[in-house]
Amino acid sequence: MPAAAVAAASASARAAAPWGVPASATARRTVNPIRALVDGLALEPNPDKPVIALSIGDPTIFGNFGPPPEAVAAVRESLDSGRYNGYAPCAGYKEAREAVANYVSYPNAEVEFKDVVLCSGCSSALEMCITALCDPGQNLLVPRPGFALYRTLAESIGVHIRSYNLMPERGWEADLRHLEQQADARTAALLINNPSNPCGSVWRPQHLRDLLQLARRLRLPVIADEIYEHLVFPGERFVPMASLTSEVPILSCGGLTKRFMVPGWRMGWIVIHDPIGAFSDEIRKALNMLSQRTIGSNTIVQGALPAILENKHKTFFEDTSRTLQEHAALVFGLLSRIEGLRPVMPQGAMYMMVGLRLQDFPAIACELTFVERLMAEESVFLLPGQCFDFPGYVRLVLTAPPEQLREACERIAAFCLRHRQPQPATASAAAD
Amino acid sequence: MPAAAVAAASASARAAAPWGVPASATARRTVNPIRALVDGLALEPNPDKPVIALSIGDPTIFGNFGPPPEAVAAVRESLDSGRYNGYAPCAGYKEAREAVANYVSYPNAEVEFKDVVLCSGCSSALEMCITALCDPGQNLLVPRPGFALYRTLAESIGVHIRSYNLMPERGWEADLRHLEQQADARTAALLINNPSNPCGSVWRPQHLRDLLQLARRLRLPVIADEIYEHLVFPGERFVPMASLTSEVPILSCGGLTKRFMVPGWRMGWIVIHDPIGAFSDEIRKALNMLSQRTIGSNTIVQGALPAILENKHKTFFEDTSRTLQEHAALVFGLLSRIEGLRPVMPQGAMYMMVGLRLQDFPAIACELTFVERLMAEESVFLLPGQCFDFPGYVRLVLTAPPEQLREACERIAAFCLRHRQPQPATASAAAD
Ligand SMILES: Cc1ncc(COP(=O)(O)O)c(C=O)c1O
Ligand SMILES: Cc1ncc(COP(=O)(O)O)c(C=O)c1O
Repeated sequence: MPAAAVAAASASARAAAPWGVPASATARRTVNPIRALVDGLALEPNPDKPVIALSIGDPTIFGNFGPPPEAVAAVRESLDSGRYNGYAPCAGYKEAREAVANYVSYPNAEVEFKDVVLCSGCSSALEMCITALCDPGQNLLVPRPGFALYRTLAESIGVHIRSYNLMPERGWEADLRHLEQQADARTAALLINNPSNPCGSVWRPQHLRDLLQLARRLRLPVIADEIYEHLVFPGERFVPMASLTSEVPILSCGGLTKRFMVPGWRMGWIVIHDPIGAFSDEIRKALNMLSQRTIGSNTIVQGALPAILENKHKTFFEDTSRTLQEHAALVFGLLSRIEGLRPVMPQGAMYMMVGLRLQDFPAIACELTFVERLMAEESVFLLPGQCFDFPGYVRLVLTAPPEQLREACERIAAFCLRHRQPQPATASAAAD
Repeated sequence: MPAAAVAAASASARAAAPWGVPASATARRTVNPIRALVDGLALEPNPDKPVIALSIGDPTIFGNFGPPPEAVAAVRESLDSGRYNGYAPCAGYKEAREAVANYVSYPNAEVEFKDVVLCSGCSSALEMCITALCDPGQNLLVPRPGFALYRTLAESIGVHIRSYNLMPERGWEADLRHLEQQADARTAALLINNPSNPCGSVWRPQHLRDLLQLARRLRLPVIADEIYEHLVFPGERFVPMASLTSEVPILSCGGLTKRFMVPGWRMGWIVIHDPIGAFSDEIRKALNMLSQRTIGSNTIVQGALPAILENKHKTFFEDTSRTLQEHAALVFGLLSRIEGLRPVMPQGAMYMMVGLRLQDFPAIACELTFVERLMAEESVFLLPGQCFDFPGYVRLVLTAPPEQLREACERIAAFCLRHRQPQPATASAAAD
């Protein structure tokens, strides 16, 4: 049948049926695993207890964390100057990109403004990196447990996810053997997230070096999600991936979001590290082209970036990391005492993973039930590990004020005490 | 060969060659036709004349247009409130979406907050609409001449472009017969841009009705790019597509960018009009899911949206449209007197298309050469029609101050006078 006839036939077929516009395959493939899981849970709180939501990775919601006043002042000045209302170049104003380049340059990883692409938040940076490096049908290696957006972004464009295991008992370091087994000829890139959401782990330089060594051997470019850079507890040290290699091409993704406590500002960036020229002009051009699809990020914030990033915000950053450590220590102390829970102490970011010894709770089949029942009985809301592809754990957000954290831990303790029925050792052995 | 062996073989093959990371097919398909064309031109200005760039669709660059002070004040207030630093829902704060719903509601097309998805600029709105409606291999109908981003966005995700002709001699109305010929069984949507970039045309309601009638008959959902809404000259009237139909599903894309003179703020939106339920939950969900890939738009501007959109800005809007009309009339008057040019008077937006009677300029093969030579000799920079898929024309931006517009027109006049060699009627007939 000639094309015109097909069209005509199909048009009249269309005309007969009620008009329904289908969503594209891309849209149908775009899934938010957290939303999908959480929407499926029964999450009615106990009406007698106020809800404590330790579920959302937004440090500003409790009112105790907010941006440094100097950063807000810089945005006000940028706005009032009237100079930043027009279009910026898609990759950002030169001065803003220069400010980021200075901010992320290290002795072994110096970058220039042309290595920086500003994006609408780190999410957009990740989207552009994944889209630039991966073809449909290829795969991307991501950590498990890991941030759910990696899956959303990859699967949306038909890229498969392969997860490599992190080991809770070894400070959430990656299982390198398992990682290597996941890689194949269709692997387009290795995604590394340090410091980690949901683990709060901050990896030793030697572990990062081992990962880079493996990336080099497998010839995998690295996407380093470093949105929690510098958000580490006192005494810990954040080391950027790029400062540890002169051989592996890295796209490092960062932004103001977490360290500056301004998720809503949507200011993120990609920094291109290309020590051996493996990315060459091609990836640089790819990222620039992709940035033209949506024309970059808010210019008022861009206009403020030099002032925001040049200021050392010493007290602010010190306060933040001390406070987060205090919160982590408080929660860790309280939860460690609870039989049936295995909290893992973080070194940074704003999260803690807590393992559940489910065999101690016969009425609780999995961590989803734990989350539902805890909400129903104690009005404490945690995210189930399945949101991060890691069943058997729950994730707590550490940014709530200490009183709320303490109260939440006490409620969790009461809950666990109520439900715990440790199996006698023999019975448990028999059940295995 | 088992998968592991393939991987190993390919890994060792990889290890032998120098490490080059290829860009994805998506990135390679992502082309900005304007950039590609303009980068290919020789654009050295005449060193003795200051450059007048009438090429960029950014009304703020000359300093004579800027946002209403009340809008800036609203953003300052939003910033200073400290309430808008956290994450908003991906589709935007409810109050901000409600403000847009009120702003775009018409007696025959009332919408609610849930019909609004806030996006990072209208570009992002268009990206989401095209991605939600079109599958790779399908096609999208777009106007010719038209805004180049439609092609960039569609081809980036493997969607083909089919252009329908606009007719300069009929106020740039669409050639409905030609449009219908372009549609086939693989057509996913009809994109309509009114008021138009690059034409500056503002269509009569009857023409919009005819287009809707056709969309209905062909069963094509409409993407209405209405980023220039209300930006029409005194006496003209902007009529939103959605107010004219109770039968065609429409995704209307808009934003603050043009009318409020704030392209850099990146505040755009999609408004879902679904009078017969053809989009149903599916497209709504698709747009919401796609908005989760990059988590929406800047929250400080969102916090200011209710104040910005409730204010009528009467004087500001009246001044803008009067000024733009004065500029258009000035340029039209001056260019109409130049032999060899056929300017087309716009009714809105901020552009004018000018036809070149190329047979009058024997040394100028096409409008690209016209643009290059005009720059080389007179330091006036216009965009060639090919940037909008419409050779033989050039596009002027009308936002420059009147003195610069006048000076530019005088230089264009001198240029045309110098190069014009009208062919005797017989010779021209023979050449046909
Ligand atoms: C690991 C990780 N990467 C990226 C992001 C996204 O950051 P943004 O809000 O800048 O898009 C988050 C946000 O929670 C995150 O946890
Ligand atoms: C017709 C048209 N649509 C959309 C846009 C993009 O608008 P925004 O800057 O809000 O992304 C433009 C910008 O010039 C335009 O001319």
